[in-house]
Amino acid sequence: MADQQANGQQHVNAASYVSELGQAARQAAGEVAIADTRIKNLALEKIADHLDQARQRIKQANQRDLEAARERGLDSALIDRLELTDGRIDGMISGLATVASLDDPVGQLDGVKRQRNGLEIGKMRVPIGVIGIIFESRPNVTIDAAALCLKSGNVCILRAGSEARHSVAEIATCITQGLKEAGLPEAAVQVVAHTDREIVGEMVRASDFVDLIIPRGGRSLIERISNEARVPVLKHLDGICHIYVDAGADLNSAADIAFNAKTYRYGICGAMETLLVNQQVAAELVPAIAQRLTDHGVEVRGCEEVQRLYPDAVAASESDWSSEYLGPILSIKVVADVDAAIAHINHYGSHHTDSIISDHLGNVQRFIRAVDSSSVVVNAPTCFADGAEYGLGAEIGISTDKLHARGPVGLEGLTTQKYLVVGRGQLRG
Amino acid sequence: MADQQANGQQHVNAASYVSELGQAARQAAGEVAIADTRIKNLALEKIADHLDQARQRIKQANQRDLEAARERGLDSALIDRLELTDGRIDGMISGLATVASLDDPVGQLDGVKRQRNGLEIGKMRVPIGVIGIIFESRPNVTIDAAALCLKSGNVCILRAGSEARHSVAEIATCITQGLKEAGLPEAAVQVVAHTDREIVGEMVRASDFVDLIIPRGGRSLIERISNEARVPVLKHLDGICHIYVDAGADLNSAADIAFNAKTYRYGICGAMETLLVNQQVAAELVPAIAQRLTDHGVEVRGCEEVQRLYPDAVAASESDWSSEYLGPILSIKVVADVDAAIAHINHYGSHHTDSIISDHLGNVQRFIRAVDSSSVVVNAPTCFADGAEYGLGAEIGISTDKLHARGPVGLEGLTTQKYLVVGRGQLRG
Repeated sequence: MADQQANGQQHVNAASYVSELGQAARQAAGEVAIADTRIKNLALEKIADHLDQARQRIKQANQRDLEAARERGLDSALIDRLELTDGRIDGMISGLATVASLDDPVGQLDGVKRQRNGLEIGKMRVPIGVIGIIFESRPNVTIDAAALCLKSGNVCILRAGSEARHSVAEIATCITQGLKEAGLPEAAVQVVAHTDREIVGEMVRASDFVDLIIPRGGRSLIERISNEARVPVLKHLDGICHIYVDAGADLNSAADIAFNAKTYRYGICGAMETLLVNQQVAAELVPAIAQRLTDHGVEVRGCEEVQRLYPDAVAASESDWSSEYLGPILSIKVVADVDAAIAHINHYGSHHTDSIISDHLGNVQRFIRAVDSSSVVVNAPTCFADGAEYGLGAEIGISTDKLHARGPVGLEGLTTQKYLVVGRGQLRG
Repeated sequence: MADQQANGQQHVNAASYVSELGQAARQAAGEVAIADTRIKNLALEKIADHLDQARQRIKQANQRDLEAARERGLDSALIDRLELTDGRIDGMISGLATVASLDDPVGQLDGVKRQRNGLEIGKMRVPIGVIGIIFESRPNVTIDAAALCLKSGNVCILRAGSEARHSVAEIATCITQGLKEAGLPEAAVQVVAHTDREIVGEMVRASDFVDLIIPRGGRSLIERISNEARVPVLKHLDGICHIYVDAGADLNSAADIAFNAKTYRYGICGAMETLLVNQQVAAELVPAIAQRLTDHGVEVRGCEEVQRLYPDAVAASESDWSSEYLGPILSIKVVADVDAAIAHINHYGSHHTDSIISDHLGNVQRFIRAVDSSSVVVNAPTCFADGAEYGLGAEIGISTDKLHARGPVGLEGLTTQKYLVVGRGQLRG
């Protein structure tokens, strides 16, 4: 399968390598799917112990990755994501404890009803099976992903970016040891050991072995994977998030919410990118919020009406309305009413997270039903869009897909439901 | 877009035609998504009235389709599916009434919890958006599909087989009139008027306009669509269903269940194709059930042990274990225990519907958790796998996919959930 080349790099046949990983994963999936919660939690605990003991080795391996990244001249944001400090190792360890503390979704029954013929029919929550996770430079994703997949009864195949390979290899050793000590199959979590890009292509087409692909990374990674995939892909695309301030809203609260949604953290997908203001409150709200944001270092762009109310605003171009700035820029638009706001959001937004600030029940209800986004928020900022804030404990990502799982994806989003039909010898006829 | 050709057939540019349908659908989707239950039910009622009034026209159009099908020498099973008798028109009308009587899933809240900061977070059920349904010769699917999509707040684009085109065109007129009279957009249900096969290819790649494709037809249609699709596809593939009779089971009841599962109707996807018998009860059960089925005209095939116990059994070949007979044939295998049964089902089955007959709680629980099928049945026949029997009221198909919807798909399976976050000015920080 792999042969040593003259330069010391191993060459691997991607198709047969992925097929081996896939068969081992399928084999392990049956056992992991029915594993006791106690055993799964024990494995998480043991993995945490090994991480703690392997701190030095992990940091040394991470140094090799960091040096190689600097030699290759990779950018500082990537190098920051790549670094494993003691704080980040602590974060992995506490993440494992958090996942162990969450309720096990596997086996939960839902909506069981007795039919007229006495059959009791409901749904039971079960793992998806084999999940392939493809990520880039953050080595700590290895632990987050492995923990969530394992707790939800799934087997996973993890493929990290080549720049993280030494760090990930050390973390993988800890995972394997933890699984072994808990009596679970080692193939419950497999880490791809080769860095050929071709392997990703094989993984996303391996529909016999892989039930779901989750890419964690930028738009280019997700788009490339979606284009090539034959396996379903859970996508996490842009967050072009809006807040609409309705007529009659409490404008002090509205200004605080808007300020928080923009400035809590610029780089998160739940950050507000466009503020929509009802024309009846624009004269009062726009100058106040625009000044406050400008003072905070945020560039304000606006429609003509906004420029009239706040002359320092830059003229927004058409492309501003569909931009995810992920930085200290905000576009503001004055709209006629809630319907105009809904139309703007559904047209220019990315169906991620959008909020209405209003005390008018009818407008709130209209907004909630008509805005086609994974999260619709009322009287709170969009930056709450996050698995931990939603009470999921941990998340594997925020789905912008409509099917299967939408919004923050935690343990439940990594499961599916099957029907359970229980009878006492009933016959159909 | 369409130009009249010399032979009187219209030629159509498939890409621009589908793009026009898709844009109209997207436009209508916002309005249908928030339509009142009352309005949607009114439309269903009006459509039923128009079908009733148009009986003669529908039957005449159907005669043209039937004559053309006979001229083309199409097989009798297809001609049977194509025919619209008064009974089938009655069936469409009563189907509309049934769907109108079902609870509207849109807007239902689930799992709302108050977080520590006072945010109330839960999920709200919402339509998927635009659904493309591609079917073959049964013209009555037009009504079933339109009714389920409309009631669940979705817009649909329906593409029937060319052999049903005159019948479907008459039915489409009734739908359009019903929608208009209820004040809903006509584009809520669009029927593809052209029969170019290329249109199907365009529909399944139109990811800007279509959110989900549901093919209703044989394996070749579904496979062709899945291969070409860029839009998610809800698949309904084979039903290779098993019953496993455990040691200690009530053998009279087991024999009745097995007989019912095979003979209730041979052609349904929930029909049992393989009977697995625990070795401890094989000597008693196998000859009795084999004789009863033989007397009923069913061919019994078996493993060596079955042939020893029932010498008239034909030797089963390896391919028998993965065959969906859909006819009067049954394969029987003697297995060592519940684990051997589970391994056989997960290896040879199609993850559709599988049943255990047992009084042993531990074995039942093991079977329920480990059998990876859309429905797992206890002490009842597999032939109950059906939306109406499951209390769904009506079904658009039985999904053999794992993600989104699994098993019989009713109104709920045509919806998705978004997060709803309700606050009172909370900020993140």
